[in-house]
Amino acid sequence: MAVSEPVRALLTSFDARQPAALARAVSIVENHRPGFDELLAALHPRLGRSRRIGLTGPPGAGKSTLSTGLTAAYRAAGLTVGVVAVDPTSPFTGGALLGDRIRMESVALDPGVFIRSMATRGSLGGLAATTREVADVLDGFGFDRIIIETVGVGQSELDIARMADTSVVALVPESGDSIQTLKAGLMEIADIFVINKADRPGADRLKHEVELMLGLRMGHAFRSIPAHHGVELRTTNPARMARKAAETEADHWTPPVLPTVGVKGEGIHDLIGAIDRHFAYLERTGELRARRRQRLRERVVEVVEDRVRARLWRDDMTNAWIEERLPELESGALTPFAAADALLERSGDLLTRGRT
Amino acid sequence: MAVSEPVRALLTSFDARQPAALARAVSIVENHRPGFDELLAALHPRLGRSRRIGLTGPPGAGKSTLSTGLTAAYRAAGLTVGVVAVDPTSPFTGGALLGDRIRMESVALDPGVFIRSMATRGSLGGLAATTREVADVLDGFGFDRIIIETVGVGQSELDIARMADTSVVALVPESGDSIQTLKAGLMEIADIFVINKADRPGADRLKHEVELMLGLRMGHAFRSIPAHHGVELRTTNPARMARKAAETEADHWTPPVLPTVGVKGEGIHDLIGAIDRHFAYLERTGELRARRRQRLRERVVEVVEDRVRARLWRDDMTNAWIEERLPELESGALTPFAAADALLERSGDLLTRGRT
Repeated sequence: MAVSEPVRALLTSFDARQPAALARAVSIVENHRPGFDELLAALHPRLGRSRRIGLTGPPGAGKSTLSTGLTAAYRAAGLTVGVVAVDPTSPFTGGALLGDRIRMESVALDPGVFIRSMATRGSLGGLAATTREVADVLDGFGFDRIIIETVGVGQSELDIARMADTSVVALVPESGDSIQTLKAGLMEIADIFVINKADRPGADRLKHEVELMLGLRMGHAFRSIPAHHGVELRTTNPARMARKAAETEADHWTPPVLPTVGVKGEGIHDLIGAIDRHFAYLERTGELRARRRQRLRERVVEVVEDRVRARLWRDDMTNAWIEERLPELESGALTPFAAADALLERSGDLLTRGRT
Repeated sequence: MAVSEPVRALLTSFDARQPAALARAVSIVENHRPGFDELLAALHPRLGRSRRIGLTGPPGAGKSTLSTGLTAAYRAAGLTVGVVAVDPTSPFTGGALLGDRIRMESVALDPGVFIRSMATRGSLGGLAATTREVADVLDGFGFDRIIIETVGVGQSELDIARMADTSVVALVPESGDSIQTLKAGLMEIADIFVINKADRPGADRLKHEVELMLGLRMGHAFRSIPAHHGVELRTTNPARMARKAAETEADHWTPPVLPTVGVKGEGIHDLIGAIDRHFAYLERTGELRARRRQRLRERVVEVVEDRVRARLWRDDMTNAWIEERLPELESGALTPFAAADALLERSGDLLTRGRT
């Protein structure tokens, strides 16, 4: 694809490592402003230098603190860090905003750190896709580490965590019976567990329970495990489960369970060590390439779906066509299925080439 | 559309009000098993008899208890009730499961009640769409009231609440500063607020704060309201805001804020009265028809997107085509955008007619 003048100028500013250019590029991509796809396409050949670390956990697990701790430690080691903090999509909680303001202050003057909070996106696009795109911009800019922090309360947050090279799941003793309520998806994505606020009562018990559960997972990789502690563990990803089982006979990764006290910075270096060991394991076994290939597959799917939605629903004629069908839909003479089939039947050119 | 024999048999069982047929129909639709679209299409002309009540709120707000209380009260009035309880999609909480088991016991023998818990769906389909489809089955079966209960922690839960005729938002004094963290989307969808566990300290203060916020909303309908209590109120739906403003000069609905104590059944009858008044208001002003037309528009969009995803991603040739492109995608020679455009360009017939 030929690169337009504004995008070329932006890329030149990237090469000069201008923070303002980065902030502008992230905003363009986050809001899907004109040229966002051209920019991402131009950055595509540069991707893959950054290591992406996912950090998820229940509200109150201290994720902001952990991510600030990781950032400080990486900076001390001379590495640059980009942070994408996905705002809770909950209509009932707004905690992350405050956390971000505090964080911003402590690193605002460090050009080796870039933090962006992502708000909920509307129906076009989708939060997981946009988060991945912003991470791609940070990768293209050349950050050594990218931390993708999500509040982990919904499916989309799991999807986000899944796109990292290494997924860290943070738990706290206060969650109390949280181990009993961990869902299978979480056990599947966690490469490293952190027991944060480990100076509080119950930390040892929680660590023991997580380790017990990990043992269960490894032992029963091939079948659905019956309810345990009221939790159904489903083998939702057979390929990965099969790979896990194969690993048990060769090179093998057992997620470590690490105690941390984020506010005191305790355990952060052990966490960084575990992340490094996990990355080395990924490289050694070819799993890194497999994960990144999976990311590329998902990217193509995302872009296709985004294109389809944009072409159909931003098209005046399509919307007018639906509007004209409403009386029949209301009366029951036309079903949404028949309407959808008819709409697709007439939208061939629009879908394949866009309105020209 | 000609109705196939199995679907005709199912509809006959529906007319005979056989609970087993209902359970089977719901399972077919929930899991998008073969014939689900034919079944929904056949039910489409029957829709609209049920009143749909959305019930959302933060974890711990007592939604299960409220919905059980509503169900019991409706049953006492001779009305049948279908409940769709959307499981928390959180990987960290599993509370709804226990709640459901308790509920099921108290109503399991009442043929006038049907309860279905919805689990998280995979990437095909989507939770909001599937919830709406299950509600359609219950509507087609002829339930007088349908309660759609969601834990309200994510965007998809908001989408679900939005599809009801009347949306009830439950809060509790324990949420403490919850009123400070309510997001705009929630204020927009709430037709009725419930302060549950109103016998606990802080209930009056919370009621006062919600009423204050509602006053703010009505007074500033046309512009973005600056941060108040750290909350940004965005006018994300201009059409609805404009309608709201028009209402202030004519027939007008101010969301009531009702205290309840769900476990004691206190306030349930006031809540039912408010729901009835709201429904009468919807009918009187034409808003009911407007909401249901909007539901039909969204249904067509959902079905189109579902068809597109099914046709593309369940197609072996499409997946093989992406697989062949992976080396170029990995090397950076091909971008996901160029791949997506090429894929759409070659998929015209597949998208408009499906693989034949």
